[in-house]
Amino acid sequence: MTSDDIYYMKKALDQANKAYKLEEIPIGAIIVYDGKIIGRGYNSRNLKKNPLGHAELIAIRKASKYIDDWRLEKCTIYVTVEPCPMCAGAIVQSRIKRLVYGCDNKKAGCCGSILNIACEPKFNHQVEVLAGVMEKECSELMKVFFETLRKNKS
Amino acid sequence: MTSDDIYYMKKALDQANKAYKLEEIPIGAIIVYDGKIIGRGYNSRNLKKNPLGHAELIAIRKASKYIDDWRLEKCTIYVTVEPCPMCAGAIVQSRIKRLVYGCDNKKAGCCGSILNIACEPKFNHQVEVLAGVMEKECSELMKVFFETLRKNKS
Repeated sequence: MTSDDIYYMKKALDQANKAYKLEEIPIGAIIVYDGKIIGRGYNSRNLKKNPLGHAELIAIRKASKYIDDWRLEKCTIYVTVEPCPMCAGAIVQSRIKRLVYGCDNKKAGCCGSILNIACEPKFNHQVEVLAGVMEKECSELMKVFFETLRKNKS
Repeated sequence: MTSDDIYYMKKALDQANKAYKLEEIPIGAIIVYDGKIIGRGYNSRNLKKNPLGHAELIAIRKASKYIDDWRLEKCTIYVTVEPCPMCAGAIVQSRIKRLVYGCDNKKAGCCGSILNIACEPKFNHQVEVLAGVMEKECSELMKVFFETLRKNKS
């Protein structure tokens, strides 16, 4: 873990906070290429009524537009929460070099928790994974969100 | 397998043929709700320079727009080739009830070949899967595509 990793994870947390304010599950992602943020995204599945509205997919679409290629081979993606199967698959498909994430997702995480799509040796691309960067801040935001959701429902 | 399954797989093959004509890997998908096709897609990853340009993701986006919800719980998706991790994950995320596909994808398939994302019991949704519908036609189209690609390269 480098000071850069913490800097960029804070930027991903800014995205997660945008989702939180919109009452969406607070997950954010950014993509970095050559020291520059070229894609940002926050979860907006409910608002957009779109199952593809996860933070990672939005950031990947924007980064591909910037790079003008579907291959993001020299990029790092920072995500506040361990990616789900769809997003872990998209990270492999776009050949992102490195994934840095904050906290584990024990219910749907596919970078070690339930499956490990990011590092599956049978695929044609494996992602370098660093977990646990700003873990406490990332998991705290999720915890507060779900606690508030439960309170409002009861 | 019903006669409906064959009818709809032919429609997915029509989509795959559109990709073929554009020199994209020939994979097509359609989504059916209450007997009506509400989403169509064909692979356009290279042309669109978008790693999210797989047939299934395009069809899911369109179907969600039609249903006006991210949940596609009463839908069936027909795909000519076994979905990759990203697309299998998107099928789980959108809670599609049933997946029918044509031929296996031994290099990246995640509905039984390498992993089985569609039926993973630890996720909050499992998809009913029927494989092998019009298998020969679906695999033949892929075979001809890659043979032509190799010929043109040599």
